[in-house]
Amino acid sequence: MDSAAFHEEIDSFFESAPPLKDSAKITDKLNQFIQFDSPSGEVKGRRVVCVTSGGTTVPLEQRCVRYIDNFSSGNRGAASTEYFIKAGYKVIFLYRRGTCQPYCRSLPEDPLLECFELADDFNFQVRQSHSEAVKGAIRDHHAAVADGLLLKLPFTTIFEYLQMLKIIASSMRTLGPHAMFYLAAAVSDFYVPWKSMEEHKIQSASGPLDMRLMQVPKMLSVLRTEWTPKAFCISFKLETDSKILLEKAVMALKKYKMHAVVANELLTRKEVVTVVTDNGNISVHRDKTWAGSDVEDPLIELLVNRHSTYIKDPST
Amino acid sequence: MDSAAFHEEIDSFFESAPPLKDSAKITDKLNQFIQFDSPSGEVKGRRVVCVTSGGTTVPLEQRCVRYIDNFSSGNRGAASTEYFIKAGYKVIFLYRRGTCQPYCRSLPEDPLLECFELADDFNFQVRQSHSEAVKGAIRDHHAAVADGLLLKLPFTTIFEYLQMLKIIASSMRTLGPHAMFYLAAAVSDFYVPWKSMEEHKIQSASGPLDMRLMQVPKMLSVLRTEWTPKAFCISFKLETDSKILLEKAVMALKKYKMHAVVANELLTRKEVVTVVTDNGNISVHRDKTWAGSDVEDPLIELLVNRHSTYIKDPST
Repeated sequence: MDSAAFHEEIDSFFESAPPLKDSAKITDKLNQFIQFDSPSGEVKGRRVVCVTSGGTTVPLEQRCVRYIDNFSSGNRGAASTEYFIKAGYKVIFLYRRGTCQPYCRSLPEDPLLECFELADDFNFQVRQSHSEAVKGAIRDHHAAVADGLLLKLPFTTIFEYLQMLKIIASSMRTLGPHAMFYLAAAVSDFYVPWKSMEEHKIQSASGPLDMRLMQVPKMLSVLRTEWTPKAFCISFKLETDSKILLEKAVMALKKYKMHAVVANELLTRKEVVTVVTDNGNISVHRDKTWAGSDVEDPLIELLVNRHSTYIKDPST
Repeated sequence: MDSAAFHEEIDSFFESAPPLKDSAKITDKLNQFIQFDSPSGEVKGRRVVCVTSGGTTVPLEQRCVRYIDNFSSGNRGAASTEYFIKAGYKVIFLYRRGTCQPYCRSLPEDPLLECFELADDFNFQVRQSHSEAVKGAIRDHHAAVADGLLLKLPFTTIFEYLQMLKIIASSMRTLGPHAMFYLAAAVSDFYVPWKSMEEHKIQSASGPLDMRLMQVPKMLSVLRTEWTPKAFCISFKLETDSKILLEKAVMALKKYKMHAVVANELLTRKEVVTVVTDNGNISVHRDKTWAGSDVEDPLIELLVNRHSTYIKDPST
């Protein structure tokens, strides 16, 4: 596809999307967050990372009853956010509503009902077994927000996700190479253009349903080359078939000019990932000597080091 | 479709479905729950209702990354469960993971992070503004479970939902007309048969994606006529287009031999519903004189009365 046709495809995606609610408010929040100096003073030279997390949905009807969803628990994004904050980054956490939140990974699915019990007829208390997890979640989450290190922005649809990513990129542009994108969200490859969508619920009366979905334009290219050309960009490649995984990650690295692509396979993604770069591939493993360890710990350490090198010389 | 072809379609749906995990454990739980006599002794002559709630998903790949989802917050099912318990019913709450839970409707989306605050470096407390909601949720939820009035069973896919509904129906069969089904879940009309599904993630390399989805066999018929022929059965009809709503509800009432169909429109569903029966339609409105009222309160009152009449004379 030539460049003019590609830009036309992108413009048509944004023009056909339903307008983003609260876009002015989101821009204000972002600008305040980026400019705010942390009282704890540990921020690493104003480094800001945008972590995207969870899956996007594609509505199949305008008054949305049915949609296609890309599955992602958001665990990777939540864990990575914690390690970025620990490393001194400010994190813009662009997450799918209802997915895993930073500092809440060890809590059960429904924490209020499962972690608390009645002490007597009028009072309740946290169960002993969940006491540390609950205390830690509330303490660390509040501290990150209060210190101006964590800004959370929720999305649901592919339209919201891409519109918000564009606004975030535009706010982060002034940061030059200190900006980083860590694109862990599971973004839909296909969508139904808003205007060609059924206004009402699709009727099930007669026979099978045939659907044609269009490809979502590859926004990684525009993010990298136009929205924030100086930012350090990491994307993810998830496959269920290990045979094609690395090949597809290398293709993505070249096609979208990413600084690194994190390749992961659905079944082993919590144990090992491969960081694919122009200078070769690095396998990153979870520390198996410790039950509570995770692969995001060494992964973020590696990427933070790479980002430091990049800031010193963005041509590398 | 003739009866033999219809049964073949149903058999083929269940045979092609991935086996349900823990089906023996679920059956045990159900039997214990149904037989257990409530210590509070208020159970209305062993009446048991199965409330289904939230939307089902249809996987598009066997190693599920993408799926089609039917949107439903689960608010209707959660509210109705509370009113059924209040009316003396035991409730089997068959709900989509992550949707609204009974007694938790007035809590914010992420209760642990939004309702609690740090008291000092080591302790946290519930925020004053959420104190009553949090206390009420924990107290009422625990009481319902402890009294043997609430059994919660989660599902995600259409395959899990229909397999669990079948097991529940079979456990409730012995209750005769004291059993009730209140089918508020948003069940997919279309699915991809498990065997014809892509094993791996659908690749996005080339052009638009064409998909063919098959119709899910209408299990309401089998539930009503074979699984639990004596149970009192209520189904729901949700449309976005008010012009076709009542017509479709009447069709469903006749086709599936329901005792009532609750017709609701997406935009007004929290204000008004229409209960469609063989003896005519009844509009049920939320009590507008009170801000905290909901339409489920008068709706469940009406249905409980209808159920009482039905128990006295199941031929009505």
